[in-house]
Amino acid sequence: MDTLHAIVPAGGAGTRLWPLSRRDHPKFLLDLLGGGHTLIQETVLRLLPVADSVMVVTGSAHAKQVKHQLDELEQQSLIPEGFPIRVVAEPSGRDSMPAIGLATYLLREIYGDHAVVGSFAADHVIREPEEFHLAVRTAIAAAEEGYISTIGLQPTEPSTGFGYIERSGLEVTDGAWKVSSFVEKPDKKTAARYVESGYLWNAGMFVMQAGALVSILNELRPSVASTLEEIASRWETPKFRKKHLMPLWDQLPSIAIDHAVAEPAALLGKVAVAPMSSCAGWSDLGDFVAIHENAPEAGGASEKPSHLDDPLLIDADGAIVRAPGGKKVVVLGISNAVVIDTPDALLVTTRELAQEVKQVPSALESAGRADLI
Amino acid sequence: MDTLHAIVPAGGAGTRLWPLSRRDHPKFLLDLLGGGHTLIQETVLRLLPVADSVMVVTGSAHAKQVKHQLDELEQQSLIPEGFPIRVVAEPSGRDSMPAIGLATYLLREIYGDHAVVGSFAADHVIREPEEFHLAVRTAIAAAEEGYISTIGLQPTEPSTGFGYIERSGLEVTDGAWKVSSFVEKPDKKTAARYVESGYLWNAGMFVMQAGALVSILNELRPSVASTLEEIASRWETPKFRKKHLMPLWDQLPSIAIDHAVAEPAALLGKVAVAPMSSCAGWSDLGDFVAIHENAPEAGGASEKPSHLDDPLLIDADGAIVRAPGGKKVVVLGISNAVVIDTPDALLVTTRELAQEVKQVPSALESAGRADLI
Repeated sequence: MDTLHAIVPAGGAGTRLWPLSRRDHPKFLLDLLGGGHTLIQETVLRLLPVADSVMVVTGSAHAKQVKHQLDELEQQSLIPEGFPIRVVAEPSGRDSMPAIGLATYLLREIYGDHAVVGSFAADHVIREPEEFHLAVRTAIAAAEEGYISTIGLQPTEPSTGFGYIERSGLEVTDGAWKVSSFVEKPDKKTAARYVESGYLWNAGMFVMQAGALVSILNELRPSVASTLEEIASRWETPKFRKKHLMPLWDQLPSIAIDHAVAEPAALLGKVAVAPMSSCAGWSDLGDFVAIHENAPEAGGASEKPSHLDDPLLIDADGAIVRAPGGKKVVVLGISNAVVIDTPDALLVTTRELAQEVKQVPSALESAGRADLI
Repeated sequence: MDTLHAIVPAGGAGTRLWPLSRRDHPKFLLDLLGGGHTLIQETVLRLLPVADSVMVVTGSAHAKQVKHQLDELEQQSLIPEGFPIRVVAEPSGRDSMPAIGLATYLLREIYGDHAVVGSFAADHVIREPEEFHLAVRTAIAAAEEGYISTIGLQPTEPSTGFGYIERSGLEVTDGAWKVSSFVEKPDKKTAARYVESGYLWNAGMFVMQAGALVSILNELRPSVASTLEEIASRWETPKFRKKHLMPLWDQLPSIAIDHAVAEPAALLGKVAVAPMSSCAGWSDLGDFVAIHENAPEAGGASEKPSHLDDPLLIDADGAIVRAPGGKKVVVLGISNAVVIDTPDALLVTTRELAQEVKQVPSALESAGRADLI
């Protein structure tokens, strides 16, 4: 059986999901779909069949909550006894390259250069995990051939919200293709052309031997490589973490692994993609529309909603309502309204503006209500 | 000085103001404008300069709360010592004719046939009480000449929400005109013609000698007259109220005083109207738009709002937000949104649909949530 050490970067503010998602309890810590587990719990459970260990990298502000949620899974006997789960607290958020890099170097200290590591976001959802597992195993096989592997999502529509992966005709291992290039989020017309040409969505899932990432970082970003190596080698010393970690960490650039590694590596012919079927039902739960479409029922099953808590919609087709506190919400005459009620804040907008919710936290900060973001 | 015994019918569900107004705490018991007094308190205070007594007629479910609110005014020394304020509990709500009729017959028992009584709704607002007092004094003078007087409002717009009063050219006393007819709520075009022709809004304010109402009731509705007379004459006997009142009360028709008395009396030439200037700033606070336009500030001053409680409106011109609990409300991209938040229910609609809010309580009842109406 193939071996994988899963890295779960758990960051991001989830500003499009305000007021459910806040700085203190961000998206990945929430049970947004009402299935009884939070998104990070679901992510770890989904990885168990293909992973030999899991390392979560999160902000120091959230490490305690993450540990608590993972302990819950153990208490529920959902994680095999002795399965290694580690939580690493980043000194500060510096995008995905430092987070995944740190985890890779730490796993390399434990499991060696040939260990295959893979990064999977903490706040995405996949309805059919078997499809995911298939793609991961394909990606592992390509990683064992020395490639930086990525999992590309078969598009369900010409979305302008994702970057795309252009693959070549060359199959490097069974089911994995060499990548020609990564391209940025396109406009609508370009997106349609990409989908027609068989491009895949880039969801930031990368699988590779630890040594392969180290080697390419040494080539492309030698100072980042040496900083990460020094941090990882001294990580287990509490005194180091207390006194010397921060100044080193601050030297790292704030950059996404896509730009720092995947894009240049693709140009060097070192990247392979394992497509994941659109039947997998993947979503990044990017806004309230995505949450609504992926939730088995509005309201959140974890609050045990009855029909009494259902919103009353009068001439309000397509309205999305979430009121986790059980308040009765009445929408009269606003089609596609989006109403999100929480104890201290209430958002009213429309489906069409779901992406624009990201404006709200900064507007609140300007209005002197940083306490609410 | 003229003498007036004011009758304040305090009923009506205020369904257009759900979820602020509920069966248990209807509109007249609420401080909707945030001035520190409820609407019924404001109504009584407004009447003091022209009235020698006040009799509130309300449902038995609300009599205790009404008494409590009027006691508060006495404790605040806002009512002269010894000023007679009475609260009469109706056995059941049967529209305005039985309520005003009962109060008139009771006041006639105390003050006699020549006492002038006048009915004034408990849940309207008048920004400039002096204008109101002028009109009331004019109406009293006409009542003393034997007329059923009404106070007609100078229209500020061709509203389709009110019935209109057509006056003749005949001035019966100084500033009061004989009424030709009362007409029903018109369509837009007819309303414009009414306003052009000098018609006045009918706000259901009637002033007359007790004996004049008794005499016209004896003429038009003799069974109503005899039932009310019997009830009034035995009212002070607790045993009567306990045992014999209900069957008598149930014989009364559920009808508005406008239809039962004012309209036919006008045709008999017995009605006069005292116009009240549009400068009075009268409003029936009929929906959330009217409340918003009459409130000195959104949010309700009685909750002492600070800028921290102000709603955050992004691309939401004209939005009306009330969240008395101090919750932060964000409206993104819905112009003219109306958002009313309460602890157990939340309404989201638009200014254009403010009148349609009246549908909500019955829809809630159908949905099994009569507890919220």
